[in-house]
Amino acid sequence: MNDSLPPRLPATGRTRHRRLREQGGRERAELDAILAAGFICHLGVLVDGCPMVVPTVYGSDGRHLYLHGSVASRSLLAAPGTEVCVTVTHLDGLVLARSVFEHGVNYRSAMIYGTPRPVTDPDEKLAGLRLLTEQCAPGQWDYARRPDRRELAATSLLALSLAEASVKLRSGPPGDGDGPDGASGRWAGVLPLVTAFGEPVTDPPLGNAAAPPHVTARAGTPVG
Amino acid sequence: MNDSLPPRLPATGRTRHRRLREQGGRERAELDAILAAGFICHLGVLVDGCPMVVPTVYGSDGRHLYLHGSVASRSLLAAPGTEVCVTVTHLDGLVLARSVFEHGVNYRSAMIYGTPRPVTDPDEKLAGLRLLTEQCAPGQWDYARRPDRRELAATSLLALSLAEASVKLRSGPPGDGDGPDGASGRWAGVLPLVTAFGEPVTDPPLGNAAAPPHVTARAGTPVG
Repeated sequence: MNDSLPPRLPATGRTRHRRLREQGGRERAELDAILAAGFICHLGVLVDGCPMVVPTVYGSDGRHLYLHGSVASRSLLAAPGTEVCVTVTHLDGLVLARSVFEHGVNYRSAMIYGTPRPVTDPDEKLAGLRLLTEQCAPGQWDYARRPDRRELAATSLLALSLAEASVKLRSGPPGDGDGPDGASGRWAGVLPLVTAFGEPVTDPPLGNAAAPPHVTARAGTPVG
Repeated sequence: MNDSLPPRLPATGRTRHRRLREQGGRERAELDAILAAGFICHLGVLVDGCPMVVPTVYGSDGRHLYLHGSVASRSLLAAPGTEVCVTVTHLDGLVLARSVFEHGVNYRSAMIYGTPRPVTDPDEKLAGLRLLTEQCAPGQWDYARRPDRRELAATSLLALSLAEASVKLRSGPPGDGDGPDGASGRWAGVLPLVTAFGEPVTDPPLGNAAAPPHVTARAGTPVG
């Protein structure tokens, strides 16, 4: 998948980890894993000189992130060639330390920087929409009705290279067990956070029609 | 709590809903509810002219959002007076429609715009850190050791007014049951997404010490 991108993430001015270096990942495989584990990102883009942060879905082929252009119609489509930052975050738990100062969050996060390219080639557009759909809802591309020509024309798709990206993460217990606070007798640990799919809820007009296996199979499975 | 802010959210150039108006909330109570339901936001800030989106924790008193300055040390602290956008997003489910085109996400999202103010007054700083700690981990401000003078000095805190904010949300079933796709016989519905706390994991040096009640009480409870 990543044959055109190096296995180590780049250290550019904005991806270099300046603080808390222990929380910075450098392997492209870590980026791939974070992207594969989710389907929602926060897209940061300049609108009239001010940042705007929009949640949206994404798809990825390991070399590009594909984004719906429509979510950023005020911004990206009005100003092609604009640099963006896309951040994908998974929360794993609250780090409850002995001291308030050492409290934190266990998480995995990826930040991708670049200038998205509008996808106009019909084949790439269809392939990108397939990636995006399958990232959110595996199996739906084959199950649902695919976009027709009119719908394709009404859909904007953007491709963002994964070349410039950084990864940050924290895992494990609190860090103040060794210090003076460790002798305080206070409990410390991690309160895990888990995101999972629930049981599918059928659209009311369909009565009690059962969801197809590729949907029911996800009930109870974790996300992120 | 909101005595100084109007009950309706403002319609400024950037908070006005231009697309999908049915997804725009206008009540300040909706904003308060979204903020109260979480503790992680995505902070968008300009660094060297490019947007950067950073996940971080927040606290709120209904009039301000409080943010750790340290997370944005490269940006906010280097450039006080910089406008930011803070977005809080809760995911509620995947909307699996009959057509790919109608697929979507059920979510609640708040976007806050403004110029954060560095909090320097020691009393406000302590109060803001208390809000931030209690938003993430209710009960920990009284249970854990509070910041001492040295730690307070090492902590940067930013206050962002909640005056300029917008709310977007989607809920309910897919919207293509009425159209031609409704007759296709395909299943459609929502696959809910639930984020919840798991069982606390004690820091290994503490052996099998039991977590205090304010921590164990959260196990199994939803977030967002």
